[in-house]
Amino acid sequence: MASAQGAKIQRVGDSSTASQPIVLRKPYLLFLGDVSDPLTLKTAFGLRDWIPGDVVGQWRLTKTTLDLGLTDLDPEAAITAGAGSIVIGAAPSGGAIPSGWARALLRAVQAGLDVVSGLHASLDSVPGLAAAADRSGVRLHDVRKAPPGLPVGTGARRPGRRLLTVGTDCAIGKKYTALALARAMQAAGVDAEFRATGQTGILIAGTGIALDTVVADFMAGAAEAVSPAAHPEHWDVIEGQGSLFHPSYAGISLALLHGSQPDALVLCTDATRVEIDGCPGYPLPSLAEAMRRNLEAARLTNAAARFVGIAINTLPLPGEAAATLMRRLADEHGIPCVDPLRSDVQPIVDALECRPSNSR
Amino acid sequence: MASAQGAKIQRVGDSSTASQPIVLRKPYLLFLGDVSDPLTLKTAFGLRDWIPGDVVGQWRLTKTTLDLGLTDLDPEAAITAGAGSIVIGAAPSGGAIPSGWARALLRAVQAGLDVVSGLHASLDSVPGLAAAADRSGVRLHDVRKAPPGLPVGTGARRPGRRLLTVGTDCAIGKKYTALALARAMQAAGVDAEFRATGQTGILIAGTGIALDTVVADFMAGAAEAVSPAAHPEHWDVIEGQGSLFHPSYAGISLALLHGSQPDALVLCTDATRVEIDGCPGYPLPSLAEAMRRNLEAARLTNAAARFVGIAINTLPLPGEAAATLMRRLADEHGIPCVDPLRSDVQPIVDALECRPSNSR
Repeated sequence: MASAQGAKIQRVGDSSTASQPIVLRKPYLLFLGDVSDPLTLKTAFGLRDWIPGDVVGQWRLTKTTLDLGLTDLDPEAAITAGAGSIVIGAAPSGGAIPSGWARALLRAVQAGLDVVSGLHASLDSVPGLAAAADRSGVRLHDVRKAPPGLPVGTGARRPGRRLLTVGTDCAIGKKYTALALARAMQAAGVDAEFRATGQTGILIAGTGIALDTVVADFMAGAAEAVSPAAHPEHWDVIEGQGSLFHPSYAGISLALLHGSQPDALVLCTDATRVEIDGCPGYPLPSLAEAMRRNLEAARLTNAAARFVGIAINTLPLPGEAAATLMRRLADEHGIPCVDPLRSDVQPIVDALECRPSNSR
Repeated sequence: MASAQGAKIQRVGDSSTASQPIVLRKPYLLFLGDVSDPLTLKTAFGLRDWIPGDVVGQWRLTKTTLDLGLTDLDPEAAITAGAGSIVIGAAPSGGAIPSGWARALLRAVQAGLDVVSGLHASLDSVPGLAAAADRSGVRLHDVRKAPPGLPVGTGARRPGRRLLTVGTDCAIGKKYTALALARAMQAAGVDAEFRATGQTGILIAGTGIALDTVVADFMAGAAEAVSPAAHPEHWDVIEGQGSLFHPSYAGISLALLHGSQPDALVLCTDATRVEIDGCPGYPLPSLAEAMRRNLEAARLTNAAARFVGIAINTLPLPGEAAATLMRRLADEHGIPCVDPLRSDVQPIVDALECRPSNSR
């Protein structure tokens, strides 16, 4: 590792590029290809449900392609409807982009749409697509790829307020909770913004950095870039990644915790999960332990960090049992406990005691 | 982030490549170029001092190039002397590889030497070098580049014993201490090996993975690959990276801590440093706090982890004051405290209570 002094001027990739998160051109045309299986269309469903106002329609290549209930549009019609980008909303079986999809994407590029992909296969691997994009003056975005020019983290405090969702495990509601909180804060008149750190979050927000794709030396720097300096009363609501208790990904969680400098933390957990996802023998930590360890780590870069709520997935529990559990956890830890999928997150927003932006 | 289940089969780069650390062909010819400034030759000095038996000589391009006191050899003579690789032992000013160096490296490749570089500029950026290497059947190694095909960490326990050096800060003696411990253990007849996680360490060991260059998702997997399953009585002595208390690099330290599954930890610190390197306002943690937090984190993947020693840089202190300080720290923490630069590390080796391999 370079010393921090030397490393501060180090850059990934093209040093002339500033450390900008990806910025996507909305609204979107959702590309569903020839996919009929709903599980393979998870990304498209997510975008339809979270940002219906940013989706002009769906493009289905075949009659058997699943219908998401959106307007059917081809690229040319989507352009007329104001679309800026076509988003690949389906995962191809096998990983590589099928040739039928490649032809369709080429047509979208020629029509004037940016192409946005969260697939493992790079858009550059589609023959002729990059050249066609150059000719049409549109852009290809692989949201799984970290942007070039990310800096090393500095730990320097920056203005603005920040909330970060952290988890007892991976895949436990950190993105969903952050989205729900940002919505509720905005609805309450707070100057708040969702900040994406994973690919689906980036598609929803239209901007962000997929932290898991960043080179290790630049993780904290990427986390700092995701929620830049802002108005002292502005809130960034940052999507957490991984878990300090996950033996595969804890390093990412810690870098995000440090780079985010959160004022407020929300712990995401699951009422019935007992083991870390995919890691037999690794029990989920207790909530008290998870809060203590996250808080201790967060306080390296923000001494005022505190937990403001617990977001728990209670789905398998009957309504009454879920309510009892949430009341018990709220009492035990002295902060609100909600299930963002079943109830509203307002109690956590209230605990933040943030001022509406019109009261500034 | 992919769920752990999905991510386990995910690979960086070519999926047909196994997750092998870089392996370098020793002995080395040290390439000093036209450099006369000793600071710019830090890598060459390090190799001369740590592995004199693996260095056949130096190649100086000009009369003003600094003399390291090694035999002067050109590539052809180095081949005759048994050399396997030429190692760039100097850092060029400006970062790019100068054209005079490029011609010299080309000649080394044509003579049959692998080329090993720890520079930021990739060897592929030297015109014609990759093609010449192909023709000569030799390899180009950028030790700053992570190998392809690294897996996601699993957290699964593997046989063998492991010692990891951790630090209160970056650049505080973690590599030096690990090297000194591995030497002392080998001298005591213990089956022990130094495991490199940074570029200079890799040049010394001839193998390893530069952890700071690994994509975030694969950090813990890379740490697991660095010290693979081994004989139950074999010791890997692993070079630590960064510090849990460094706001730029703590994520790397945590991933290495988890992936290493250390049985034994040695805390490296500095007697006079008060602030984290390059991070004004970040005080060095107390030794007790540093041990508590590292131990807590280490116990996620190895419940038996314990501290076996403190390695402190006392260089600015007079000998008597240093000795008093080390005695006090040893008493306070109940483990040996040594200065690897001034005294020997044997007390820490003794604390390990490992058996010589001939007693198996």
